[in-house]
Amino acid sequence: MDKEGLVRRIVEKQSFLCVGLDPDPDKMPPSFNGDVLAFNRSVIDATRDYCVAYKPNTAFYEALGIDGMLILQETIAYIGKDHFVIADAKRGDIGNTSRYYARFAFDTLGADAITVAPYMGADSVGPFLDYPGKWAIVLALTSNSGSADFQHTVQEGDNVPLYAKVMRRVAEWGDPDRLMFVCGATQAEKFAELRDLCPDHFFLVPGIGVQGGDLAAVCRYGMNPSCGLLVNSSRGILYAEDPGAAARGLQRQMQEAMKKFCPELSR
Amino acid sequence: MDKEGLVRRIVEKQSFLCVGLDPDPDKMPPSFNGDVLAFNRSVIDATRDYCVAYKPNTAFYEALGIDGMLILQETIAYIGKDHFVIADAKRGDIGNTSRYYARFAFDTLGADAITVAPYMGADSVGPFLDYPGKWAIVLALTSNSGSADFQHTVQEGDNVPLYAKVMRRVAEWGDPDRLMFVCGATQAEKFAELRDLCPDHFFLVPGIGVQGGDLAAVCRYGMNPSCGLLVNSSRGILYAEDPGAAARGLQRQMQEAMKKFCPELSR
Repeated sequence: MDKEGLVRRIVEKQSFLCVGLDPDPDKMPPSFNGDVLAFNRSVIDATRDYCVAYKPNTAFYEALGIDGMLILQETIAYIGKDHFVIADAKRGDIGNTSRYYARFAFDTLGADAITVAPYMGADSVGPFLDYPGKWAIVLALTSNSGSADFQHTVQEGDNVPLYAKVMRRVAEWGDPDRLMFVCGATQAEKFAELRDLCPDHFFLVPGIGVQGGDLAAVCRYGMNPSCGLLVNSSRGILYAEDPGAAARGLQRQMQEAMKKFCPELSR
Repeated sequence: MDKEGLVRRIVEKQSFLCVGLDPDPDKMPPSFNGDVLAFNRSVIDATRDYCVAYKPNTAFYEALGIDGMLILQETIAYIGKDHFVIADAKRGDIGNTSRYYARFAFDTLGADAITVAPYMGADSVGPFLDYPGKWAIVLALTSNSGSADFQHTVQEGDNVPLYAKVMRRVAEWGDPDRLMFVCGATQAEKFAELRDLCPDHFFLVPGIGVQGGDLAAVCRYGMNPSCGLLVNSSRGILYAEDPGAAARGLQRQMQEAMKKFCPELSR
């Protein structure tokens, strides 16, 4: 799915919700009897009208062994072509090797995008950006406590923190039609700065809900004229008593935010 | 395999060679007819006397789809318990999620160690270090050209480059019995400094051979009294006319290096 297709769906749904499909057999309702694919399908059926994207995190499927990879493939096939699918895999290796990860995410899984770790630099990110019609979503400022360890350290010479250096540098490698950044909602106070760094790129925003991110602040400072945000909720929807209602609730908050901060896409 | 077991095998084999099992069906000899598992088995049979470790890179298996995961599992089973097995996966996610990757590498695959990307910090690395009897091998200074983009940037305040900050900080989270660092051989001139930063930790050293690293320099500056190095060769062995001879050649160079720089383990 290209950027135009993504923005069109955001306008149609009045939502920029991404549902994280991170199924934990221990937390699934007992009625599913541990059937992860059936659980995913029920969540997708309940939420597809309220979201524009799904983000399965590959870790949860790999932990299920070989079957998990099949479940992941079938889950993505079940989502279909009308939603943007992000393989949340946080991959990255030397260029020769990243090409194989790209093949996995885009050909084997059929995802539209993959999340990528930037530590290994240009040749590790390039193969994801060079894949025709697909997206790389590069970690910038993540939502976890460990983001403080390295991402905030100020770089001498540039006088900017590492996350800002990553955004500036990586933005030189890919335009907003195929590159996004991961910017965690738990750092909502940073969104004005993040938006200044990359005015035109979409941000994938995890950390709403269980992790405590502030949706209103993220929207106020993070939206741009193309919306510019995909806000993810995983556990807050998956393990809600009614996942559809949880997604609808977030969709309504997003619709309000679009009215305020992104009126040209609002209706 | 614990550190004592690893060092014992290094002494027995007079080798600290790690063979990278990164099979590319397009480069395999035609006699294998694209059968990756048969190819891996033949490489393992030819090299197991000369190496102490194998390092399959998960990207090459994921690119083969579902079958690839089965081939990876069977390859690791075929290696057996007498070699140290590294799942070169470069994973890392929020703590809740890294736990699932650990389960994948250690339970599903049966690896002794997994390579880990440090960008997301402590909670992303911790679940690999906390796994009983297993190892995390954290990216410090990698062998690819993109390592220049972020790893070398000097951190204000600390006045050290990012890779040094990573090594110092991560070494606080895990002792040399369960933590190693990836330090690329293509940066051989840095090994004295890297060894100063972490005197006791093992370094996994890719980049020998095709990538141009200098084995002698790495040994001179990188060895410690426990050897302290696992030097990896992938393409230089896999696609050699005679993989066994290629591995034996490297083993002999390593034996010489041990005599010079690590005589207490030499024989």
